[in-house]
Amino acid sequence: MPDKVTITVDAMGGDNAPAVVLEGVADALSTDSDLTVILCGPAEVVEPFASQHERCIAQPATEIIGMAEHPANAVRKKKDSSIVVGCRLVKEDAAQGFFSAGSTGACLAAGTLVMGRIKGIARPALATVIPSPVRPVVMCDVGANADCKPEYLVQFGRMASVYAERILGIENPRAALLNIGEEDTKGSQFAQEAHELLKEQLPNFAGNAEGGDILAATYDVIVTDGFTGNVCLKTIEGTSKVLFKTLKDVMMATPVTKLGALTIKGGLKQLMAQVSPDTYGGAPLLGVKGACIVGHGSSSAYAIKSGVLTTANFVRAGITDIIAQTATGVQAGAPGNGGQE
Amino acid sequence: MPDKVTITVDAMGGDNAPAVVLEGVADALSTDSDLTVILCGPAEVVEPFASQHERCIAQPATEIIGMAEHPANAVRKKKDSSIVVGCRLVKEDAAQGFFSAGSTGACLAAGTLVMGRIKGIARPALATVIPSPVRPVVMCDVGANADCKPEYLVQFGRMASVYAERILGIENPRAALLNIGEEDTKGSQFAQEAHELLKEQLPNFAGNAEGGDILAATYDVIVTDGFTGNVCLKTIEGTSKVLFKTLKDVMMATPVTKLGALTIKGGLKQLMAQVSPDTYGGAPLLGVKGACIVGHGSSSAYAIKSGVLTTANFVRAGITDIIAQTATGVQAGAPGNGGQE
Repeated sequence: MPDKVTITVDAMGGDNAPAVVLEGVADALSTDSDLTVILCGPAEVVEPFASQHERCIAQPATEIIGMAEHPANAVRKKKDSSIVVGCRLVKEDAAQGFFSAGSTGACLAAGTLVMGRIKGIARPALATVIPSPVRPVVMCDVGANADCKPEYLVQFGRMASVYAERILGIENPRAALLNIGEEDTKGSQFAQEAHELLKEQLPNFAGNAEGGDILAATYDVIVTDGFTGNVCLKTIEGTSKVLFKTLKDVMMATPVTKLGALTIKGGLKQLMAQVSPDTYGGAPLLGVKGACIVGHGSSSAYAIKSGVLTTANFVRAGITDIIAQTATGVQAGAPGNGGQE
Repeated sequence: MPDKVTITVDAMGGDNAPAVVLEGVADALSTDSDLTVILCGPAEVVEPFASQHERCIAQPATEIIGMAEHPANAVRKKKDSSIVVGCRLVKEDAAQGFFSAGSTGACLAAGTLVMGRIKGIARPALATVIPSPVRPVVMCDVGANADCKPEYLVQFGRMASVYAERILGIENPRAALLNIGEEDTKGSQFAQEAHELLKEQLPNFAGNAEGGDILAATYDVIVTDGFTGNVCLKTIEGTSKVLFKTLKDVMMATPVTKLGALTIKGGLKQLMAQVSPDTYGGAPLLGVKGACIVGHGSSSAYAIKSGVLTTANFVRAGITDIIAQTATGVQAGAPGNGGQE
């Protein structure tokens, strides 16, 4: 899949921008020699970097959208912000994808309003790869749509299954509805209606999942509304953080425990890397015309690199076209059917 | 608080009933010399035990409600089940509280239908103590009401705050709404409406919490609907389980890591106990006339003992009366106001 790909990157996205963004982009460019990056941000940041790196083009943008701004308002108002400019270049076919570690809300708004929805998709949705130590799990929606209709969840399930199959390489991914009981009749009115629709319309639907099934990777794809998904994602991240922090206190308690801790340090580091969101580098906004991937605000240079490379892979795998086909009912690229490439 | 208390216990509740239940009850009886237990279950189980233990009365019950039965139907049909009999004795004033580690759904149904709702309480709700290594946190509702109206959450917040104050001894507990952003205007339509009402009507309301705030114990009380609360609770339990399991693999990997692991074994065991649901022994159904506490299906004898003692403490703290007063607007016993006792 060494197709030439051009993507736009928001130089000003994330808590440690632009430094870690530039470092991550430099690493991504040297890893992927068929990648071109259009770097969007203040001229004094992007121009010197572009002049020093092959396959990097500077795209000056005079405005920045802050983390605290109202997403949709900021996107409408700040037309020359790095996020809006990055998405507009995709809309105008100057690039095929966009990556940012900036305000998630602003990226969702710009992706939806500037790139535009794929025809037939009711609501674009944010998916994320839950970094389980067992195996990766895709959860969707994790925050683009706080209020959902049951029928949206069928599209979320289809789009997330395409992502699981084409990007994570999971064959015949099994999708489940996040609910409060395994039995078909369990849950809120909303969950019961969504369950019925998923059973009828999502070929790879495998039933209800409970909260405990997410990190245990009982299913490959977890379908949910954006409110529950976001609460759950942050609960998983918060729980891991508190447990690792407390574990560290246990290991650092005495000289003897410190010595003992040395023996498991390597394995523990590996485990922490496995459950770190950095590994997958970003959450894709599925259902818009182009790749639009949002990184964690606290992204490291490694996470930025992963995010940029994932965006390029998203483009090469033709995810947008496959989603467009499944949305309009053309089954060629539907998960499990092999289809194109 | 050494008041004499009588509570009913479901001898047949839980995965390892009746053996662990009997062991837990025996431990609770020897710990609390002002406690009398009415043990409900098959005559051949409860009579021999009662004859061998002081302050234990056998109450034969010929039926058992299984974990897989439809809760409300089973409660209506099996009038001589250990759960229904246990709740009826509270209704008839033969006891002041009921404890079971059996079907949560059946206990919620029996608590609500048999004991009855406190006047003015729209929906009884299930609270639970989230065993955070930082400090305990009360979350409510965690599963009694999958579909809620925003106004229910104000009562959930009041009831859970009473529990946090009177049972966990948290002075002036700070309550937060589980939501997908800290700002007041964030969240689903439902969450936004609930936020407005909580701000107006819950004196100890402190704003929105996110998933990451639960185990971090940023707030003392987390208010949510029963769907989100249940998903979150199971997500926390599942995440801890997967991480501890993977950590164990890391520690058991080689002879050297095994040796190193020995040094932190004590501290790790303590941490695992801190985050184990066994520590608090059960989840109270708040808003019914009497104490009604439900243990984990996988309860150990230690968890049963904790649950039985918590039920007795619930009675002694007068939680039901305080909730009745706050529900009808009498402020004497409201959290933070000192009031009665």
